[in-house]
Amino acid sequence: MILNTPIDMHLHLREGEMLKNVLPYTQNQFAAAVIMPNLVPPVDNKERLLEYKEEILLNSENFTPLTNVFMKEFSEDELLDLADNIFAIKLYPAGITTNSENGVKTLERVYPVLEMMSELNIPLSVHGETNGFVLDREREFIDVYKKLATDFPKLKIIMEHIGTADMLYLLDEYENLYATVTLHHLLLTLDEVVGGMLNPHYFCKPLIKTPKDRAEIQKFVKSGHKKVMFGSDSAPHSIKNKLKGAAGIFSAPVILPALAEFFEGDIETFQKFISDNARSNFNLNVPEKKVELIEEEWRAPYIVGDVKPMWAGKKFKYKVK
Amino acid sequence: MILNTPIDMHLHLREGEMLKNVLPYTQNQFAAAVIMPNLVPPVDNKERLLEYKEEILLNSENFTPLTNVFMKEFSEDELLDLADNIFAIKLYPAGITTNSENGVKTLERVYPVLEMMSELNIPLSVHGETNGFVLDREREFIDVYKKLATDFPKLKIIMEHIGTADMLYLLDEYENLYATVTLHHLLLTLDEVVGGMLNPHYFCKPLIKTPKDRAEIQKFVKSGHKKVMFGSDSAPHSIKNKLKGAAGIFSAPVILPALAEFFEGDIETFQKFISDNARSNFNLNVPEKKVELIEEEWRAPYIVGDVKPMWAGKKFKYKVK
Repeated sequence: MILNTPIDMHLHLREGEMLKNVLPYTQNQFAAAVIMPNLVPPVDNKERLLEYKEEILLNSENFTPLTNVFMKEFSEDELLDLADNIFAIKLYPAGITTNSENGVKTLERVYPVLEMMSELNIPLSVHGETNGFVLDREREFIDVYKKLATDFPKLKIIMEHIGTADMLYLLDEYENLYATVTLHHLLLTLDEVVGGMLNPHYFCKPLIKTPKDRAEIQKFVKSGHKKVMFGSDSAPHSIKNKLKGAAGIFSAPVILPALAEFFEGDIETFQKFISDNARSNFNLNVPEKKVELIEEEWRAPYIVGDVKPMWAGKKFKYKVK
Repeated sequence: MILNTPIDMHLHLREGEMLKNVLPYTQNQFAAAVIMPNLVPPVDNKERLLEYKEEILLNSENFTPLTNVFMKEFSEDELLDLADNIFAIKLYPAGITTNSENGVKTLERVYPVLEMMSELNIPLSVHGETNGFVLDREREFIDVYKKLATDFPKLKIIMEHIGTADMLYLLDEYENLYATVTLHHLLLTLDEVVGGMLNPHYFCKPLIKTPKDRAEIQKFVKSGHKKVMFGSDSAPHSIKNKLKGAAGIFSAPVILPALAEFFEGDIETFQKFISDNARSNFNLNVPEKKVELIEEEWRAPYIVGDVKPMWAGKKFKYKVK
């Protein structure tokens, strides 16, 4: 099967040696990816952004990085200066708890930025979790999404890496809300992390949740819902750091083979999920790139640099040509 | 405050070097403990049982081990031969899934043993989890408890280490059901394991669950419910094995100081939970032993042998004298 211009709408590439190790897996499967800015120091100004974009371009071919910056209290001049080089601004509202005065204050501090983004047509990318109990954090954040969607009706807001199915029902209620779904939230449950022996390699935020959440997410994805897009949130950490408790799953190597099995020959919906929905929702200007999957047994890598990938060593029915 | 004859109704002591390292913490705080038989090979015959009991007695003073054996298809002679040296028989029904034919068959294979135990007045100790989704395993097991309680009305059945509050409501429905509650299910939630960085030292089975479960468990314990007894399920693993994903929390060193803070001066209920309920429910014949807690700042050990204890290094308001 041939996919047209696959796009990963949520990717962590890191920097330096790690980037060199992991980027080839995305480049091989995708035409473009939205690159998240949580480096140390974070990508939150033009100089750092251009430097980072340059590093990605130097280490790839025929691949378009759609870079994001971290939210801060940007001035209008700063924002105008950034606009050409960013896809979206990423909001990780640490400290926000629904109905908490402080939380709302934190959010309202960036309201002027959200207003400008709305006018400049820059999407907002959100890690939607409160500081509540770990299994409730996404559900509790629903009110924040509702408030943002209502207060900025022209701002396109991406609910990233949906793990709790309830949030998907917001897509039809609010015209300006969109969602990304990862491979792991689509295919796994919390059993993978804590069902048998503890498995740090499947620990991530938002946590992978229940079979019910997974079933609902699968239903939305299989329906071809226009506002549901693939975003891997592939987030490599060294095995050493995973054993220290770092959150993140490095799924990049197995994405298309795993999705090809999931869609069971429904290439039309696969194409929408992996590319068309994103391109039409955001008018993405990404050069066309065909990616072919052939029916041939393929085994996922056991290790990439010092990172253990999702489904390390697992056999798949499809292989990226 | 002085506690009379505290009993830990569910304890893992291991063997050899590990037993030598961990036993002093229990001996220092408890008059007796129910010792679980999951060694390699398991304690499931008289020879092994007496050998293990001897090891515990050799390494302790003024301490009564109430030993358990693993469930197997015992003959009447075997059971009669064991009866004097065991407190209960432990059933870990791996493979049981509610309504699964296989599960019921597995359970029914030991029905003759349960019948004899019922006649001999030997309690049944149960790890109540199905093989379902990790957060549902205890709730799904409720039907098994109901069936056991109904099929053997004279058999005393202990629902061990309750993590899902729903099970506590069975206590008033079935005269022959009892429950143990651990320190960690009483005081922690899943946030401890996966709420921040992944923390393997708080990973255990049954998993620590939600704030709602914890609140209900606390309510039952604070009510002094006669059928709710303390059982730590303290389960030491080397740090090396914890990092490999082993389940179990080594809570033994901090039990009484932590419970003293939890009961906030309600010594009467504390005394019931830590001793009186167990002694009266099971007519336990344990020599009296007074344990005094004094109000003096005390810090939990950072490490015991190669094991990291629960709340390592935490300061408590009470100290065991």
